[in-house]
Amino acid sequence: MPKFVRRIPDGDDRERLVCSTCGYISYENPKVIAGSVVVAGSSVLLCRRAIEPRRGFWTLPAGFLELGETIEEGAIREAREEAQASIVLDGVLAIFSISRIGQVQVIFRARFARGVPDFKAGIESLEVGLFVWNEIPWSEIAFPSVHWSLEEWRRVGNGPLGAPAGNPPYDPRGTARPDIRSPEGPP
Amino acid sequence: MPKFVRRIPDGDDRERLVCSTCGYISYENPKVIAGSVVVAGSSVLLCRRAIEPRRGFWTLPAGFLELGETIEEGAIREAREEAQASIVLDGVLAIFSISRIGQVQVIFRARFARGVPDFKAGIESLEVGLFVWNEIPWSEIAFPSVHWSLEEWRRVGNGPLGAPAGNPPYDPRGTARPDIRSPEGPP
Repeated sequence: MPKFVRRIPDGDDRERLVCSTCGYISYENPKVIAGSVVVAGSSVLLCRRAIEPRRGFWTLPAGFLELGETIEEGAIREAREEAQASIVLDGVLAIFSISRIGQVQVIFRARFARGVPDFKAGIESLEVGLFVWNEIPWSEIAFPSVHWSLEEWRRVGNGPLGAPAGNPPYDPRGTARPDIRSPEGPP
Repeated sequence: MPKFVRRIPDGDDRERLVCSTCGYISYENPKVIAGSVVVAGSSVLLCRRAIEPRRGFWTLPAGFLELGETIEEGAIREAREEAQASIVLDGVLAIFSISRIGQVQVIFRARFARGVPDFKAGIESLEVGLFVWNEIPWSEIAFPSVHWSLEEWRRVGNGPLGAPAGNPPYDPRGTARPDIRSPEGPP
């Protein structure tokens, strides 16, 4: 492995990962997660994760944006990869900062492209399903931002999308760990 | 320099930068730009760039989000660094994908924290100024997304912020070069 050390390069004001052999600077910046709340009537599409972190827990189709993609293209690709679903995006439902792990998440509201639900588990999912609000497996949700996205979907329903939701007041910087439940959080 | 080659690592489906000596994978993903349209009455704050790319051209206070920051914190820091301005964010004005260079830009509408304009050039700016719409130096704007942000500000003015703007129809993927003007673009 390269021998990276943390130091402040000349002309910078932050520590970066610098190769102690050749001086190469590996800039680390937050990454973008693109995902969607895919709605069919009063149900929402959830995927049970086949991979770590949080294997076995339920999440939205979402993942790291790749170079060369727009955020819309990333969200559509993730729904295809994780749920073998073709979706159409309605608009931006929420934008979250998860500063603990260096993520910015852009979550769209979406629907199935063919008008009727059509999906099955992709390689990163153990299973995929549609859930009405009261049947969502709340105790097995993978990440806090999945809770937040679902709460925002409940709030706006199928109505017009306005200003996107941001982090909730009880976690404005996205520092809560997924395995520790906030007493002020959703069910 | 490390000898990186482009190849598809096992279990992946895209080319990554892989060190040919040790196998280290340098994942490259899009980066997040956080910035703001800082408004005072009918004027907007612009900064003339002291650094490349586009040195000498005018831009919004905006820059790369750093690890550990929320997008709001990033936008506030950039206004401080580039225009020595303390700002308060109103909400999200626009979200753009600049796929040509791997960026997602989150642009807020903001105002001066003290209620009155208070700014001067930071180290990355040659000069900083407030401009009413008709005095904006349109022929010397640094990047297409600065145009798009200013257009969205003109559209919403000081009214309530609704759904954020996205890329304009004439450049949905953010592929236009800043030095080539779109015939369909703004003035």
